[in-house]
Order: sequence, then structure tokens, then C-alpha cells
Amino acid sequence: MKARIHITLKNGVLDPQGRAIASALHALGFNSVGDVRQGKYIEVDLAETDKGKAKAAVEQMCNRLLANTVIENYAIELVD
Amino acid sequence: MKARIHITLKNGVLDPQGRAIASALHALGFNSVGDVRQGKYIEVDLAETDKGKAKAAVEQMCNRLLANTVIENYAIELVD
Repeated sequence: MKARIHITLKNGVLDPQGRAIASALHALGFNSVGDVRQGKYIEVDLAETDKGKAKAAVEQMCNRLLANTVIENYAIELVD
Repeated sequence: MKARIHITLKNGVLDPQGRAIASALHALGFNSVGDVRQGKYIEVDLAETDKGKAKAAVEQMCNRLLANTVIENYAIELVD
């Protein structure tokens, strides 16, 4: 089973990396670009076959290591 | 319109960041974890309303700035 994890900054948290990308895109002439937010995308291969257990494990991974839950949200998607 | 962009390393390209995450997860006791790959996730707000034009613009952004197409793949998803 594979877990796809999106980690994004919470609304209201300043995203300097996103700002830098937006500025660079404007400089390249992409004037229709408004706000840009950058997050992380992590794919984890799991030996676990039970979907419930896999989800619980990945939530623990996010809380303990992958995401800083003070400023970041995470979303988990499981695929077979 | 909003574009969601996933940028991932191509298969066969070494992913040291993913390796580091996998090692850290093993050290925390998550033994069911196999391969881990880390990529980038970028959300871009666009003033463009035409889906075709928006897609073309975002492809250009990926090729010119966001992705290194020698070692990275990108996937674009447009949402209203």
C-alpha cells in the first residue's frame, strides 16, 4: 500500500517560498499569477495491507515527524 | 482558477531527502515503511478563466521555472 501525503502551511502563515516563486513568475511575464503557496509532497510505501491500520500509522508519522502541526496541515491519501 | 502542481523526481534519480525520511521513520519504530520519495507541491492562483490557456501557461511555468525537467516530472491539475 502507498500513502500520498500533502503537507501545506496553514492559512495565515507567511509563505516566503511561495512569495519568491510568485515574484519569479511575474518577472518571467506570467502576469495572471496571483497567490502561490508551496508545500511538500511525500510518497511512502507501506508493507501494511489493512487500510485502517495504515491510515493510523501514517497519521502518527505526520504528527511525530513529517509535519509541524503548529503551522502545517497534512492530508493523507491511501492507494493500493 | 487554481493550479495544483506536483513535482517529483524521475524514477531512477536518487532521492536523499526521501532516504533520510525513511531512516528517521525506521528509527521511530515505523518498521512497515519501505521506500519514501519526497516531492514538491505548489498551488498557483490564476486570473485566467480559460482552462486550455491556463493549462498551457502552467506547463510553461513548469518548464521554465518550477521543475528541472532533466531529473523531475510534473503533473498539473486545474480546479475552478
